[in-house]
Amino acid sequence: MLVEFAKNTPQPKIDEIVHLLDNAGCRVRSMHCYGHPVLRAVSGHINGQMRELQANSYIERIVDASTPWELVSRAYHQDDTVVQVGSARVGDRSEGLMMIAGPCSVESEEQILKAAHIVKAHGASILRGGAFKPRTSPYSFQGLEEKGLALLRKAGDTVGLPVVTEVLDAGDVDMVASYADMLQVGSRNMQNFKLLKAVGRSGKPVMLKRGMSAQLSEFLLSAEYILSEGNSDVVLCERGVRTFADYTRNMLDLNIVPLIRDTSHLPIIVDPSHGSGDRKLIEPLCMAALSVGAQGLMVEVHPDPDHSWSDSEQTITEAAFGELMGKLQHLDGWLNAESYTETNS
Amino acid sequence: MLVEFAKNTPQPKIDEIVHLLDNAGCRVRSMHCYGHPVLRAVSGHINGQMRELQANSYIERIVDASTPWELVSRAYHQDDTVVQVGSARVGDRSEGLMMIAGPCSVESEEQILKAAHIVKAHGASILRGGAFKPRTSPYSFQGLEEKGLALLRKAGDTVGLPVVTEVLDAGDVDMVASYADMLQVGSRNMQNFKLLKAVGRSGKPVMLKRGMSAQLSEFLLSAEYILSEGNSDVVLCERGVRTFADYTRNMLDLNIVPLIRDTSHLPIIVDPSHGSGDRKLIEPLCMAALSVGAQGLMVEVHPDPDHSWSDSEQTITEAAFGELMGKLQHLDGWLNAESYTETNS
Amino acid sequence: MLVEFAKNTPQPKIDEIVHLLDNAGCRVRSMHCYGHPVLRAVSGHINGQMRELQANSYIERIVDASTPWELVSRAYHQDDTVVQVGSARVGDRSEGLMMIAGPCSVESEEQILKAAHIVKAHGASILRGGAFKPRTSPYSFQGLEEKGLALLRKAGDTVGLPVVTEVLDAGDVDMVASYADMLQVGSRNMQNFKLLKAVGRSGKPVMLKRGMSAQLSEFLLSAEYILSEGNSDVVLCERGVRTFADYTRNMLDLNIVPLIRDTSHLPIIVDPSHGSGDRKLIEPLCMAALSVGAQGLMVEVHPDPDHSWSDSEQTITEAAFGELMGKLQHLDGWLNAESYTETNS
Amino acid sequence: MLVEFAKNTPQPKIDEIVHLLDNAGCRVRSMHCYGHPVLRAVSGHINGQMRELQANSYIERIVDASTPWELVSRAYHQDDTVVQVGSARVGDRSEGLMMIAGPCSVESEEQILKAAHIVKAHGASILRGGAFKPRTSPYSFQGLEEKGLALLRKAGDTVGLPVVTEVLDAGDVDMVASYADMLQVGSRNMQNFKLLKAVGRSGKPVMLKRGMSAQLSEFLLSAEYILSEGNSDVVLCERGVRTFADYTRNMLDLNIVPLIRDTSHLPIIVDPSHGSGDRKLIEPLCMAALSVGAQGLMVEVHPDPDHSWSDSEQTITEAAFGELMGKLQHLDGWLNAESYTETNS
Repeated sequence: MLVEFAKNTPQPKIDEIVHLLDNAGCRVRSMHCYGHPVLRAVSGHINGQMRELQANSYIERIVDASTPWELVSRAYHQDDTVVQVGSARVGDRSEGLMMIAGPCSVESEEQILKAAHIVKAHGASILRGGAFKPRTSPYSFQGLEEKGLALLRKAGDTVGLPVVTEVLDAGDVDMVASYADMLQVGSRNMQNFKLLKAVGRSGKPVMLKRGMSAQLSEFLLSAEYILSEGNSDVVLCERGVRTFADYTRNMLDLNIVPLIRDTSHLPIIVDPSHGSGDRKLIEPLCMAALSVGAQGLMVEVHPDPDHSWSDSEQTITEAAFGELMGKLQHLDGWLNAESYTETNS
Repeated sequence: MLVEFAKNTPQPKIDEIVHLLDNAGCRVRSMHCYGHPVLRAVSGHINGQMRELQANSYIERIVDASTPWELVSRAYHQDDTVVQVGSARVGDRSEGLMMIAGPCSVESEEQILKAAHIVKAHGASILRGGAFKPRTSPYSFQGLEEKGLALLRKAGDTVGLPVVTEVLDAGDVDMVASYADMLQVGSRNMQNFKLLKAVGRSGKPVMLKRGMSAQLSEFLLSAEYILSEGNSDVVLCERGVRTFADYTRNMLDLNIVPLIRDTSHLPIIVDPSHGSGDRKLIEPLCMAALSVGAQGLMVEVHPDPDHSWSDSEQTITEAAFGELMGKLQHLDGWLNAESYTETNS
Repeated sequence: MLVEFAKNTPQPKIDEIVHLLDNAGCRVRSMHCYGHPVLRAVSGHINGQMRELQANSYIERIVDASTPWELVSRAYHQDDTVVQVGSARVGDRSEGLMMIAGPCSVESEEQILKAAHIVKAHGASILRGGAFKPRTSPYSFQGLEEKGLALLRKAGDTVGLPVVTEVLDAGDVDMVASYADMLQVGSRNMQNFKLLKAVGRSGKPVMLKRGMSAQLSEFLLSAEYILSEGNSDVVLCERGVRTFADYTRNMLDLNIVPLIRDTSHLPIIVDPSHGSGDRKLIEPLCMAALSVGAQGLMVEVHPDPDHSWSDSEQTITEAAFGELMGKLQHLDGWLNAESYTETNS
Repeated sequence: MLVEFAKNTPQPKIDEIVHLLDNAGCRVRSMHCYGHPVLRAVSGHINGQMRELQANSYIERIVDASTPWELVSRAYHQDDTVVQVGSARVGDRSEGLMMIAGPCSVESEEQILKAAHIVKAHGASILRGGAFKPRTSPYSFQGLEEKGLALLRKAGDTVGLPVVTEVLDAGDVDMVASYADMLQVGSRNMQNFKLLKAVGRSGKPVMLKRGMSAQLSEFLLSAEYILSEGNSDVVLCERGVRTFADYTRNMLDLNIVPLIRDTSHLPIIVDPSHGSGDRKLIEPLCMAALSVGAQGLMVEVHPDPDHSWSDSEQTITEAAFGELMGKLQHLDGWLNAESYTETNS
């Protein structure tokens, strides 16, 4: 159960309610969301206090999400959340196609700058590039680390694109946040709860990638960790899951996209590069992702994919990216026009 | 390795080659495909005979598919196969949207006739309806059996639609084939090899549904069973797979659609009703399936879904079906126009 | 809800109750189990008739299994079922180690006879050997069919062992039953319901292997199909399931063994050959299966495994089988002594 | 390829070899393992230098593990590693049954002390108890944190047992290490590479739990991260994986135990509490785990399981634990005697 106060409610007025609920045996958690003070209490115990709460003039709403995820639920917040990432707006369909693109890893100044020019030229809105790489083997390339962040920042600034990059550890959040416009929490860290709390306190937008075998509820509860620390600028990302299938690296789960749009206000984008691990599937899966309601896409693009230091098989060339963007912008335009017609008919 | 003969090659000329290969230690299998006699032999042993085979004037092609599936491969047959099902043509994009629709089960004459009128009125091309139902429990409704087949046939004839229905057992193939325009082999029977052989000899088009945890290679080799019996009228159907996910009945695997279109000439359609088990996902998943290249769709529709005897949660109403068809025809038209432009540019 | 009658209840007395329940709106199914007539009706509707049923002197018990599986439940039948297979008794711990062994396929008279001598010499109780092989590819060896059955029968008779072999199709049940002491329904056919019904009417013991991604409830309901046709001689077999794991052919699921023993009276055995696909895991997994409560084991043994026509990687030699049997008999003895001590202490 | 130097090789002698390999184009990593300096270089480039390396008197061994995991491989280190945890020795079969037991979470001084007395009294070797809990929901109990560590330490000292507890974040390693005898890295963090590196530098033994959908190679490469930081005191723990199965919380994978024992020198233990999530499976799965070669067990025990703050369904009582330990010690003794007989025969 969420108790939302008016934006400028004085702290003592909130404390009174905390006290009331504490005395009633509720376990209360005090949070902020979209500028409002919010108390969260277990619904079973709060019901006896309902009359008093409803009478309190500082309390604007009492919301029973009736799902384990509360702040991220549509029951709590009905409109689609739009996440501002530098100049880009994730979740705002009126902005046109939201494409996040760039190489798997930042490899050199020349490489990331070339990649930035490519993705900018063909209409991407955000530049991606990894500087801290979560690699299965300790002997694989682990990323250029802070040097890579500086190169990514510089490339983004040069072409005029905001940048997103992965942070692997709570202890690195401030440093990464000083370079990036959006922090990525990767699949392997979807339930690294210390990291979720840290990015929740970072003041930066967060892209949360789904874990390799995460249930819908686990995915949304990981987002809830971030919101419960006061940060509602969260973009969800479906990137394929691990199943029995041996013919693709992962199985892209498009079922989850409309389910999440139904139950949560957070924007969800799709990453078909990791979701298939196969270059030739990028285009059809991007088309499918938009059709199913994804609010954006993330694709790995490299000036020279065959010499990419990581994820080579799933990375596309400039030519392929250009062709892809043409088709996707066309489809996105058509889908937007469709839904416009539909809304007004 | 496949050795294809000219259509009217005299049997003794084929026998000569069989003899030659037998003597060379090949295990040879004699088949027919698209009207051509075809011999299949293990490639390792055939290579020594290549010169003689190439010199034989009755032999038109020698094809090394280099995949375990051979007759179903694009290496063997490059053009998309079109499967004629009564008046409908599955796999022919120029025909517009290919929609197969109808109830999970035939329940009564009134129900199946109503359903037939509904799906016909909104543009479906083939009527579906189960008379032999594979049910997890022996105590669940098992279908109306032959009586249901007769009702389905009558409903199809009344509204002018070909019909598809499931056959559960090799011993039932002739009987079911006497009523249906296309035989469905269900997920649970994808590796019922006796049934695959029987439908391969039935002379009827076959819709082969993917097994619940079938790999791509297993799916195509099950189709190969049917083709190797002389029947190349096979429609593949992706219908979701079983994974760890607990929020949908199955996980629809759209990754496999473009992979199959790449490696096989057989048409592939998508069944989002079973692929999700959730009514509210039917529309977005249908859109996604078309976008990813599926050549048709199969959807469960019932005059009164909430009183459907089976699969109620995933079945949609006439109103929902009508709205769905409007959107899908629009998208299909747009996708076809796109690919037309693309081809000619 | 199951209504069990005394063994020799006259049919008219049963018909009276069927009539009573029909009139009360129950859907009633008439069956036989362990020699008793049994009616099965949906519990919701039967409750109003309870007083009358309880007063009926022919009715011995009314059992609410409270699980979807009823005849196979311990609620219905509390003692462990023992299945007599020729001279062997599956499920009877006092008989010592129950080992079913032999080659994947019957390949020749010499091969199956050698194999029979080997498994007999080292203490196996039942000889296995496939004559109808479910193979992924139509071009793989499909078994010697009826000729193979005759060879298997002869080998069993020669060494004095009952034989078990797979039947793939309802239409073959009578023929296979004329050679075999127990009919195997394989993983791919666990939900081939026509086949389940046919073996249920065959009068022969049935070994039902778990499907590759079958839930516990699906496994037991497939067994229920067989019992509901009047055949309670069913042996369940866990043989590994399909998961994400890429380092073994299947993942042996030992969790399910004690769960099945808890909820069902049917004996369950374990097949580590298919459950791992790896020779070197056979011994530890056999040990584990006995420890977890399995009532028998099935292992692939071949006179010359490296030249086995199928499943070579998971098949063991005579030497390995001999060593294995020594250890297992020792462990089995120890486990039996333990549980004897426990029961009497 | 691993190049192992004699224990007291002077640094300049090592540097010479690093220089040699650098010049040959190898990417070289300098490590320590079991007190030896070790260089790791990609095998492709090192071969040209082999003669010079073999002639170097400081180099004791050059090992090509031929697996992606190198330091953890049996190719590199043939004997079973024994990990000393306070007074306990994990991996040393001569010590008798290795049981790690205790509650899921430290809840209070009284609770953890009671639990410690229980597990000590019945023969456990190490006390477990969580103070930092990785919980799916931000609103669930997150553990008593440092206060919990102090209580755990005190309870262990009081009864004379070493303690193991989970660490969630690289930033907490030093603090947790100041209380614990062994650091646990949980399933959700198996690929938290910053944490792996931090525990690798901690100087404390580490228990690494398998991730929910980790392949064998990923599990061992996560261990390799720890060893490559100089810490070879690693205990692996199989705790069940996530599959399609809906009747247990996880599926315990006993296939992996003998495979890991075959390919790695690290001890592996099994946690049936998480591996099934079901109290009634603890005993049979413990028996099976020992039978399959696990070198220890971890079980959740609580003075009052039904009022446990977490994992209540899988936690057992003192009575159940006492009975369990009796059976397991008996089986363990029998298995040890067996393998002794076998070795000497």
